[in-house]
Amino acid sequence: MTNVNDQMMDMMSMTMPGMDMKMMQECMEACSAAEQATTMCADASSGDNMGRMMSMCMNTADMTNTMMRMMMRPMAHDMTTMMAMLEATMMMCKACADECTTMADMSDHAKMCAQVCMNCADACEALMGSMKAMPSMS
Amino acid sequence: MTNVNDQMMDMMSMTMPGMDMKMMQECMEACSAAEQATTMCADASSGDNMGRMMSMCMNTADMTNTMMRMMMRPMAHDMTTMMAMLEATMMMCKACADECTTMADMSDHAKMCAQVCMNCADACEALMGSMKAMPSMS
Amino acid sequence: MTNVNDQMMDMMSMTMPGMDMKMMQECMEACSAAEQATTMCADASSGDNMGRMMSMCMNTADMTNTMMRMMMRPMAHDMTTMMAMLEATMMMCKACADECTTMADMSDHAKMCAQVCMNCADACEALMGSMKAMPSMS
Amino acid sequence: MTNVNDQMMDMMSMTMPGMDMKMMQECMEACSAAEQATTMCADASSGDNMGRMMSMCMNTADMTNTMMRMMMRPMAHDMTTMMAMLEATMMMCKACADECTTMADMSDHAKMCAQVCMNCADACEALMGSMKAMPSMS
Repeated sequence: MTNVNDQMMDMMSMTMPGMDMKMMQECMEACSAAEQATTMCADASSGDNMGRMMSMCMNTADMTNTMMRMMMRPMAHDMTTMMAMLEATMMMCKACADECTTMADMSDHAKMCAQVCMNCADACEALMGSMKAMPSMS
Repeated sequence: MTNVNDQMMDMMSMTMPGMDMKMMQECMEACSAAEQATTMCADASSGDNMGRMMSMCMNTADMTNTMMRMMMRPMAHDMTTMMAMLEATMMMCKACADECTTMADMSDHAKMCAQVCMNCADACEALMGSMKAMPSMS
Repeated sequence: MTNVNDQMMDMMSMTMPGMDMKMMQECMEACSAAEQATTMCADASSGDNMGRMMSMCMNTADMTNTMMRMMMRPMAHDMTTMMAMLEATMMMCKACADECTTMADMSDHAKMCAQVCMNCADACEALMGSMKAMPSMS
Repeated sequence: MTNVNDQMMDMMSMTMPGMDMKMMQECMEACSAAEQATTMCADASSGDNMGRMMSMCMNTADMTNTMMRMMMRPMAHDMTTMMAMLEATMMMCKACADECTTMADMSDHAKMCAQVCMNCADACEALMGSMKAMPSMS
């Protein structure tokens, strides 16, 4: 993200008290990277046995974009819904990373996409962990 | 949905054995209606005290679109991820319907949007119920 | 679209004077159908020589969704931008329909998708025609 | 974008001969930044007289996301459609930047969003210029 967006994150932190903004920004960036990697991987991967991976990549692209946008709307912030969506996104990214890994020997796009999706799953999991530790969730 | 899409649903049913296709089609249509209603409601609702509803409507529009697309990709079908996303979408639709209901006296868009979102939450819940009853989930 | 959305269209007509609302609603519905058909076609079409069609379907799905949402936001209505986006969507739908037509013998999804995309291109063209005939555009 | 995506750009360059990949990557990044800035600005901007800006920001978020995804799908690459979509995106970004500029004194989000949108309009225009100069377009 650009410096402009860093400034926006500072403004946003005022509206989401208690939230670990650094961790949330990392999750946004991981979602953005996952949307891009899966979009490119889906485009590059037509061919035998690639159908399931392509479709999983398209699902992941849509889910990570939606997850990113949700984090960018503090006005609508609702802890329970955010947690449910982080859970769903984490699952999708893991499943997509698994599928891409099975194709990694045949496609450099898949190999890279697997890494980016796993990184996004980790970022979602980390953010969920920090949210569970917030006083309001205990 | 048009007749064209009815035919597509028939084709799809072959690739998702055990799935209640009629219920899934209802959920797709409910998601599509919710995306449209929330997009219109968010557009119509600037004004004092409307900020949270607008942002929740934008979240709901993105989530229901993503949910609909996931159902339209049987190649990527994965029961666990689908259930997690249905859960998240149901929660978001309920939360959005609640917020819109509080504005129903002030806005006809909000009044209608509340109904459409509640209907979508119900459709997601019904589909989840039918999926839980499938042999492979028990 | 549901009756609920018909009512929303009535509300919307008040904010876009001069616009042919019936024609715009037909264009929204054609965009919605095209997003659905192309999403299903892209999912169904892995295999040799199908790569370009799949990617064009993904582009069409994203463009028709964006076009539909723009029409559902009368507050942001701007004639020039709307015309430019209708032009781009029409071109994309025509190109996608052409590609799907070449695959129609091999795939029922492609055959149907070609029809739905051509219908959407026609709806965009018709709406552009009616907009060009508006007094404010002459 | 991350290094992972830099590598993906290298792979992509092989499938789009003649295209200025550096300029296209700048345009992708500008679109991604614009989607993020407009999403945050729309969320932050409820209030009197802000309705049009919010809706324009939502349009811009959807268009820039669609534009970015199109550039990430070289398999579907079609010069004429890409040019039409770049034109529409450039117009939308300019119109959104103009609207945000009128609110810049009242909102830091709008002030920043105006810059990011103008930057995206410039990146689209630059890419269109380089495409027009390609031998196949002359």
